Amino acid sequence: MIPFNKPYMTGKEMHYIYDAVYSGKISGNGKYTVKCQNFFQSKYSFGRCLLTSSCTDALEMAAILLDIKAGDEVIIPAFTFVSSANAFVLRGAKIVFCDSRKDHPGMDEDLIASLISPKTKAIVVVHYAGVACNMDKVMEIAEQHALYVVEDAAQAIDSFYYSKKDNRQKALGSIGHLAAFSFHETKNIISGEGGMLVINDVQFEKRAEIIWEKGTNRSSFYRGEVDKYGWVDIGSSFLPSDIIAAFLWAQLENLEVIQQKRISIWNNYYEKFQALTTQFDLPIIPNYASNNGHMFYFSCPSIVYRDELLKTLKAKNIWAVFHYLSLENSPYYSNLHDGRTLPNSKRYSETLVRLPFFFELDEAKISHIIDALTKISLNLHDTSHY
Amino acid sequence: MIPFNKPYMTGKEMHYIYDAVYSGKISGNGKYTVKCQNFFQSKYSFGRCLLTSSCTDALEMAAILLDIKAGDEVIIPAFTFVSSANAFVLRGAKIVFCDSRKDHPGMDEDLIASLISPKTKAIVVVHYAGVACNMDKVMEIAEQHALYVVEDAAQAIDSFYYSKKDNRQKALGSIGHLAAFSFHETKNIISGEGGMLVINDVQFEKRAEIIWEKGTNRSSFYRGEVDKYGWVDIGSSFLPSDIIAAFLWAQLENLEVIQQKRISIWNNYYEKFQALTTQFDLPIIPNYASNNGHMFYFSCPSIVYRDELLKTLKAKNIWAVFHYLSLENSPYYSNLHDGRTLPNSKRYSETLVRLPFFFELDEAKISHIIDALTKISLNLHDTSHY
Repeated sequence: MIPFNKPYMTGKEMHYIYDAVYSGKISGNGKYTVKCQNFFQSKYSFGRCLLTSSCTDALEMAAILLDIKAGDEVIIPAFTFVSSANAFVLRGAKIVFCDSRKDHPGMDEDLIASLISPKTKAIVVVHYAGVACNMDKVMEIAEQHALYVVEDAAQAIDSFYYSKKDNRQKALGSIGHLAAFSFHETKNIISGEGGMLVINDVQFEKRAEIIWEKGTNRSSFYRGEVDKYGWVDIGSSFLPSDIIAAFLWAQLENLEVIQQKRISIWNNYYEKFQALTTQFDLPIIPNYASNNGHMFYFSCPSIVYRDELLKTLKAKNIWAVFHYLSLENSPYYSNLHDGRTLPNSKRYSETLVRLPFFFELDEAKISHIIDALTKISLNLHDTSHY
Repeated sequence: MIPFNKPYMTGKEMHYIYDAVYSGKISGNGKYTVKCQNFFQSKYSFGRCLLTSSCTDALEMAAILLDIKAGDEVIIPAFTFVSSANAFVLRGAKIVFCDSRKDHPGMDEDLIASLISPKTKAIVVVHYAGVACNMDKVMEIAEQHALYVVEDAAQAIDSFYYSKKDNRQKALGSIGHLAAFSFHETKNIISGEGGMLVINDVQFEKRAEIIWEKGTNRSSFYRGEVDKYGWVDIGSSFLPSDIIAAFLWAQLENLEVIQQKRISIWNNYYEKFQALTTQFDLPIIPNYASNNGHMFYFSCPSIVYRDELLKTLKAKNIWAVFHYLSLENSPYYSNLHDGRTLPNSKRYSETLVRLPFFFELDEAKISHIIDALTKISLNLHDTSHY
């Protein structure tokens, strides 16, 4: 069986966990938490970084920081993980779903302006597969309407956007007012479960620290700014154990090796796929975006074709998977959705396939997967009812 | 320096983390998560158990499960950690604070009935220092008024309540409709950060699993009950990495050794304190409660006395600490509180001292601490302005 994902260990994870454990400080905000946060701040020019237990937690912190309240509207792509929306629903927001682009599962930036109402408070962009949304456009719309932008960069570590406006490359997660990353075991850089909030807008820095520490001013206390700490705001226990941060640190030390390898896997898939372009739509990387080797996906002609393809691949011990179900049609939100059809998001829900993708996937396996796909697609092509 | 706390490792933590890491499944709900949950369910006759990233997370799950909404009232002791209240405030609840007992920092069960209004939805009891609240009384009041009871059992692992009504001993966490535990590094059984929700009322079981898994029916999907999973409810990423569960498992295997040792430390303190009872009020364990050796605390005659005592102990390299600041007077809630004074909670805020308490605290150190306290208390006693 070729699995869909296989967490990659750099070799130093246990060493740093051991160090954290026997240093006697394994709760949150310890030595490795600070090391990881500093790494991100300096490498990608992020604002203040705070590790969290998950990307979901980071998005929830964003919703609290933006003071989202009942009745507020938040614009979010429909083709995304539930947490992008849930985090804002938990604060009472109405979600206004944005369709995907025709050429990419990411949100269609040209639709955003038409979704804005006087109640709109924020735009959440999701850099699907680590490929940048057109952030110049998003930030311009946000500025015009005085809205906040949250980058859901769960899949977008070490990926970049070329800003024409500023004539320079910017790391994803450094552009919006806030950004959220994931270190779930399915991501490029992992810690089992784990995430991070990036606070690029300094007005949110102080409060973010409080919300992170369960609504207390404990961080100020430890810096000696106040003589005791207490309950000063809402908040939660968003910070992960330093054991998790120690694991993450071993990954970050090897970020470049991991990234090079993953991008080469992606390129390998892409090259071999050139013979299959009549059957499948290949991913498109706009010229303003980089490729961070997070996932390799393609689209099938129909849902029946796609489901048959996945089934047949599984029978050949290749674990390929579909992805999100468009959220406006979900059991939870379909009655709350405003009724607009979102044809592109629906199409990606029904036709997208993600292939096995992990550090240790070698060229022989990739060839084997491509061979299998070629054979299946020929058969499916011949079957008239697809 | 004798620290206030020192996390204790049983020796197998790294072994199990290694096993989890190299099994290739380190996100949530893995092998060790299931092992830990089963352990609790079978050892303490708990209902369904779900590990969480923190006790705070477990309390937030409880608030969501009880469907707490804006305007609902929740009765919570004032002398507790901010998360006991925050979790319900996040869902819009008004907190009605209950005073401590005269003889114990736990909530005064005799006051609860007077705090109930038509808007009251739940009572949160906190088993302070692992010492049971009078649960027969609490459950009776709750039943009379059709209220839910959440046990904040953060400090109460392996502690018990003797129910006169049922004529048997019950584990704390097994009595309320829901209960929350903590495995923070300061607790008896630890995993750095970590917690657990116990669902004793079966009506909440199915929804708890959904909320735990980010509002999706992923658990049903993996059991083959549905053919794909989607967004069916609100929720969050409450489940911890299996790395954290692996650590916890090593602790649980040694639970009895840890508990015996901690209780002997407590007894040692208590015995040696008999010479100091004219200066200090010692902890009281009601006859219906057990002692789980979580902490050793005592009360001083005044806040000035207490602060001087802590300062002097620190100068002697003994790290004793105070505890909660009564929440009704907190910067966050003082304007929202209904104005009642809570004299006992205030008194414990001002006079309570917690002594160093950890597995590796030996008899020599305990004697040294008691000697220091004896000398300091004699000096403080002689100082007329206290």
